[in-house]
Amino acid sequence: MSTHLHREKLLSLFEENQDGVIFLKGAETMYRYGTDFEFPFRQESNFWYLTGVNEPEYHAVIDIGSGNFHLFAPKRDAKFAVWHGKVRRKDEIEEDYRPDSLHYNNEILTVLNKLKPSVVYCLDDEQAEFIEDLNREFKVDADTLQDAITYCRCIKTDEELELMRKAASVNNKAHLEVMKALKPGMYEYETKAIYDYHQKRHGLLHPAYNGIHAGGSNSAILHYVENRDLIGDGDLYLIDAGYECEGYASDVTRTYPANGRFTGDQAAIYQVVLNALNKSIENTKPGVKMEELHLGACRIILHGLKEIGIVKGDVEEMMEKNIFALFFPHGLGHFLGLDTHDVGGYPKGVERIDRPGIQFLRVRRELMPGMVVTIEPGVYFIPALLKPALENEEQAPFLNREKIETLYDFGGVRIEDNLIVTDDGNENLTEVPKEIKEIEAVMKS
Amino acid sequence: MSTHLHREKLLSLFEENQDGVIFLKGAETMYRYGTDFEFPFRQESNFWYLTGVNEPEYHAVIDIGSGNFHLFAPKRDAKFAVWHGKVRRKDEIEEDYRPDSLHYNNEILTVLNKLKPSVVYCLDDEQAEFIEDLNREFKVDADTLQDAITYCRCIKTDEELELMRKAASVNNKAHLEVMKALKPGMYEYETKAIYDYHQKRHGLLHPAYNGIHAGGSNSAILHYVENRDLIGDGDLYLIDAGYECEGYASDVTRTYPANGRFTGDQAAIYQVVLNALNKSIENTKPGVKMEELHLGACRIILHGLKEIGIVKGDVEEMMEKNIFALFFPHGLGHFLGLDTHDVGGYPKGVERIDRPGIQFLRVRRELMPGMVVTIEPGVYFIPALLKPALENEEQAPFLNREKIETLYDFGGVRIEDNLIVTDDGNENLTEVPKEIKEIEAVMKS
Repeated sequence: MSTHLHREKLLSLFEENQDGVIFLKGAETMYRYGTDFEFPFRQESNFWYLTGVNEPEYHAVIDIGSGNFHLFAPKRDAKFAVWHGKVRRKDEIEEDYRPDSLHYNNEILTVLNKLKPSVVYCLDDEQAEFIEDLNREFKVDADTLQDAITYCRCIKTDEELELMRKAASVNNKAHLEVMKALKPGMYEYETKAIYDYHQKRHGLLHPAYNGIHAGGSNSAILHYVENRDLIGDGDLYLIDAGYECEGYASDVTRTYPANGRFTGDQAAIYQVVLNALNKSIENTKPGVKMEELHLGACRIILHGLKEIGIVKGDVEEMMEKNIFALFFPHGLGHFLGLDTHDVGGYPKGVERIDRPGIQFLRVRRELMPGMVVTIEPGVYFIPALLKPALENEEQAPFLNREKIETLYDFGGVRIEDNLIVTDDGNENLTEVPKEIKEIEAVMKS
Repeated sequence: MSTHLHREKLLSLFEENQDGVIFLKGAETMYRYGTDFEFPFRQESNFWYLTGVNEPEYHAVIDIGSGNFHLFAPKRDAKFAVWHGKVRRKDEIEEDYRPDSLHYNNEILTVLNKLKPSVVYCLDDEQAEFIEDLNREFKVDADTLQDAITYCRCIKTDEELELMRKAASVNNKAHLEVMKALKPGMYEYETKAIYDYHQKRHGLLHPAYNGIHAGGSNSAILHYVENRDLIGDGDLYLIDAGYECEGYASDVTRTYPANGRFTGDQAAIYQVVLNALNKSIENTKPGVKMEELHLGACRIILHGLKEIGIVKGDVEEMMEKNIFALFFPHGLGHFLGLDTHDVGGYPKGVERIDRPGIQFLRVRRELMPGMVVTIEPGVYFIPALLKPALENEEQAPFLNREKIETLYDFGGVRIEDNLIVTDDGNENLTEVPKEIKEIEAVMKS
């Protein structure tokens, strides 16, 4: 990655603080409780973004005035070589990461003392403490840097977008392979096995999140990660999964009929969600706010559910009574990048909307070219939400009790694509069949 | 799991402390740095062993006098149901985990106050602090419990052994599939994809450790986990990997010629390691100490390397000069169980042996029936060890410089089986071809 572009972008936000430095602490290896079980190493996203270093125990100092990038490496000994591989010489590390100056970790204080910064910008209190422990004399600021990096990370460079396209293209393949293999009688973990296999064989080794492979009523559990149940004939099957390419996430959801043919109810409800998705994608462009897209999707969902006879009454009245949130209780989408729920959704001062469903919306920024978002409407039948609503005198009049009570085991439908916001609209990175006819054709063959 | 057997075993060690209680804190969900990336939940091993609870945020109190098992569950609300699934009633949780009394987490202090324990045994300082934060009046002991549980976990019950057999049997299949698929021109991550697939499709979802898939000289890096290189024709290929079955680990290593045919050097060195493995397995039985097995394997390795012309001189003199550790720098094996490097290798008071190679031996307990151990000799060509030895006047006379210098890119061979110690010997859980002829036959077909 051309991380110097990221550093330049960040420095441009600090033009009035020429005497300060930016300090960053890279990730260390994480262990499971008191054991020596190591989690696969994954660099902390901000450190990766600004340094491109993919090894534990590094530190960085960026001198704002000169723009110099000081990288600090851990010193390794022969024992390290035996257990973890060749100890690289300083010039080899320099070639890999191209810092302006390379030092060892024990030189951080010396370098800082030489730079005599008026202020040391740190990512958070923990990293600020690290600097204070070196020398209490340094003035640290743990408030400014996080917002500044976040601002940079919101708008992706061309190179970042290329990596996201690659993550998406492998994800398209992996989802397609699951669609082809899916059959009733399989266990949920078998589709996970197939899915993960197709990511890994393309060299993508880090899941972007804990994937959801959910059959039948499990598909109505938004963060279902057990993946242990048998997939029944007639079940819906929901897969929400993605892997990272050099840190950049893909995050795609599809919902299929396990046996390859949608039932009447399944097709009707699926089509409602698909309409909401397609309309939202059409409207994803610069200048639009995610909350507008979210509320637009809610209206489409209510219209659709009304047509099927699940809800009844005036759609605008239902909007006022938050009926949409009984079926669509999560946000329409989120930023996507080095984190799956990527940073920057809420600029400073913008709060969450205190209203069911949309309170979980992770982005309220106005969309701009270079942002990457997910669009992921859904309709679920969640007894924990519907049963109380049927007893609530404000909401019950809008609900068709008889129909809803037959759907408690229905599960849910979510369909999710990943979009790059472009100058005049968007580029959809997700190419996995989603029209009912397409899905049935793929699954029949 | 019949965790009541584990609790009874533990309580039998506390017979003289009838007024005390044992306190345990279950694991919480782990996140990646400041993000909402959740690692797949895996219970802390001791909590799992004693309670069988596989969900985050539980606590347990075992009253030593009465033997009563008090389980404390987190209280969930409707929001939890939407995101994580049905909130179980108390009687449903009781049915799953069979405590003597089930409480919610906010009742820990109340229950402890009622029990009025003379001492609260805790696993470590962190858990002791949790109790002290509830009430400074409690007397806590953070020294005794860990050793006691460790003692229990060393000797597996029949049910635990069954789970280890299951983990091993799936592992046998996964290793065999990799052996069949391996070809030069593949990337290391492709064998990882195949290997992980065969574990997951059998329902084993948790790796027991970060697997090693290492071609060519990478096979001489003991903890190589990058898995990104191309596998060359003529390369050795080393796979050290295992998954957990209900928490119980399997841990198997095999080394193959990537193209299916051992070269002369590869076959000769492989056979040395195999001889060390086979002889060590023959000697694995009650009453034997792991350090005896380790040193026995070292002798076999030195004899073998001498025959090939890699080392020279008297084997006993070479033993004295630690020549074995230049080629075999790690321990012969370790306990295996709920952790891959399972607890209990060193009883209190027994220290590591201060000598190259064997200092890394993880077990010095005398073997007893019901223990499960790995046996994993290896021979590696690690320039970081061999180059200094060739300049060391004590060691250089035993080394055949010319031969060794041709082998710097050779990589390494490790072969590892998992054994249950039985009354009169052992039961080998690992059934993956390891004789040269067998391997070549499988890979040719």
